[in-house]
Amino acid sequence: MRIGIIGAGQLGRMMALSGIPLGLQFTMYDRSAEVPGAAVAPIVTGAFDDLRALARFARGVDVMTFDWENVPVASVRAVEKIAPVWPPPRALAIGQDRLREKRLFQRLGIPVAPYAAVNDWHGLQRAIASLGTPGILKTLRLGYDGKGQSPLRQPADAAAAWRQLGGQPLLYERFVRFTREVSLIAARDQGGRIACYPLAENVHELGILAQTRAPFSDAGLQRAAERQAKRLLVELRYVGVLCVEYFVDRGRLVANELAPRVHNSGHWTIEGAETSQFENHIRAIAGMPLGSTRARGHAVMVNLIGRLPPAGKLLGIPGLHWHDYGKSPRPGRKLGHLTQVCATRRDCDRAAAAMRRIAGRRRTTESPLC
Amino acid sequence: MRIGIIGAGQLGRMMALSGIPLGLQFTMYDRSAEVPGAAVAPIVTGAFDDLRALARFARGVDVMTFDWENVPVASVRAVEKIAPVWPPPRALAIGQDRLREKRLFQRLGIPVAPYAAVNDWHGLQRAIASLGTPGILKTLRLGYDGKGQSPLRQPADAAAAWRQLGGQPLLYERFVRFTREVSLIAARDQGGRIACYPLAENVHELGILAQTRAPFSDAGLQRAAERQAKRLLVELRYVGVLCVEYFVDRGRLVANELAPRVHNSGHWTIEGAETSQFENHIRAIAGMPLGSTRARGHAVMVNLIGRLPPAGKLLGIPGLHWHDYGKSPRPGRKLGHLTQVCATRRDCDRAAAAMRRIAGRRRTTESPLC
Repeated sequence: MRIGIIGAGQLGRMMALSGIPLGLQFTMYDRSAEVPGAAVAPIVTGAFDDLRALARFARGVDVMTFDWENVPVASVRAVEKIAPVWPPPRALAIGQDRLREKRLFQRLGIPVAPYAAVNDWHGLQRAIASLGTPGILKTLRLGYDGKGQSPLRQPADAAAAWRQLGGQPLLYERFVRFTREVSLIAARDQGGRIACYPLAENVHELGILAQTRAPFSDAGLQRAAERQAKRLLVELRYVGVLCVEYFVDRGRLVANELAPRVHNSGHWTIEGAETSQFENHIRAIAGMPLGSTRARGHAVMVNLIGRLPPAGKLLGIPGLHWHDYGKSPRPGRKLGHLTQVCATRRDCDRAAAAMRRIAGRRRTTESPLC
Repeated sequence: MRIGIIGAGQLGRMMALSGIPLGLQFTMYDRSAEVPGAAVAPIVTGAFDDLRALARFARGVDVMTFDWENVPVASVRAVEKIAPVWPPPRALAIGQDRLREKRLFQRLGIPVAPYAAVNDWHGLQRAIASLGTPGILKTLRLGYDGKGQSPLRQPADAAAAWRQLGGQPLLYERFVRFTREVSLIAARDQGGRIACYPLAENVHELGILAQTRAPFSDAGLQRAAERQAKRLLVELRYVGVLCVEYFVDRGRLVANELAPRVHNSGHWTIEGAETSQFENHIRAIAGMPLGSTRARGHAVMVNLIGRLPPAGKLLGIPGLHWHDYGKSPRPGRKLGHLTQVCATRRDCDRAAAAMRRIAGRRRTTESPLC
């Protein structure tokens, strides 16, 4: 069976690395052949809205998926008649629109932060008056890694936020005074069976995921998150891996956003779980049963952003796993990650501190507002 | 850094799958492009004794290794001036000659079964008279997976054995009444640091490895095997992974043979150890430090030989890992393997029984003579 991946970044690369041992073959589609996926699959190049090139690509594969949440939905819908696309294009469309996402969460009884759609300057004023500050103004589309967001500490910040983002559909959201950020990675196979990984705890720095630790180990929140993920997966007739990111606000989950794909906060599963998120995504879209999502211990994952530390220094740390995506360095760019699996959570914290030192980072927590 | 692998079978494929996450690139050389390695690396085709083609291949890579122990030593020596070859060609030469192998074992104080070189029919008669039966007549060269061997239950079997193998350099070896077969996978990096995996216990069927279980968990034998492996690695100025196969005879190790490469009895390390044999081999030849060889629990590996069972049935077993090498079926051919990692040895035995049922095999032990 040949699997086509639209997008050939590090996520596509890690999907192929997990699927090749299953006897599957891969082809990827991206704008350039100089992509991380090129190390493991032939790359077909073309624009993401070139429907003819995409159709040719689709005719050469048995099933398709994507590794990037901003692939145009129209492109995916145009080729899904040629070869099935999983996750379903509807999930992709919802993941690309913060308003549809919020409304779906609400309709399924999944708590979200209070919000209001903002279409003009007066709409922003009304939203601030009704929801108060602090809050965040966000674009509905193309937001990731902290892009397309502007925080408002006080009503007077509205003008600056509007200058930055105004002129496109927006959403104003009351800031959640969260104590933690967690995410759930869940998978659904073609027979409708669902498997969830343990919740992972995430730390963002400057809007980009810096560190993930798993399992988060809160039985009540795990049950709540799994219940919510199941509702989403069933509603969307989902096949593949889905990620839901949450804030933990006074012991309760508040859904922030969903990603209809394998997710950076699930990279720990490569070494830290019985079956990785990548293998389970590929198993699901290839019509195979899901593998066990059991954690192997306590895992910590640290992202390598902007520059890579020397491999020799890192690999000398016993038990450290190094993933270099083969990308050229650039400030703010995710170039690789490190994972360590430990017997206890305390060992994990110590390992994380050592990894961060080597990765050239010091802080472990940062909130965009506090 | 680009690594060239001479031979692009399943071992080369698994080397590349473990090295690509480290940011390394791979090219492979084999007689055909229809090889398991083709899924993960460009293949340069040519005969293994085509020195011009091999030289061209060597010029395109930074360091070379091999995934097959019968690559002609002359070929490797001819290209090692262009790019370094690890493990060293001397180790390859010794692995290809049972007599040199035995003599090296003896010189380093590593116990072997009593043996005699056999060059003609009278030599075989003398060897039988001196060492007795049962015994095994073996070719010095090109023996693997039980090929090039003929067992002698009694002196009268000599004629049949001679008919089968006579006319080439041979060796007669007294049969070791072993209780177990075990193997040690050891690695040495370019700085001379050595790391050994826990001993694994192997079961052969019809001369082909059928099952491996690890760790074997005998502290005394582990110490003895590590001591012996270190002598071999240092003597050979070895870089990369080495496998030594042993019989256990009345509680003592008797060395059977060495393989100067990653080995089928080390496949369990992909899921069952902190760092796989493949990653440690690649780290060593790429000049990186070795990773931890700690076992993650109790692992069992079952080879899939001749035909593959349906993937869906296998993947439904929780915790089972499936490796399909992408080869076409043929009787006696290794097409893939299964691995399961369990908390206890008993769980492992139960898992092994289920895996063997699905793999279509029943027996777990078989000796060529008893």
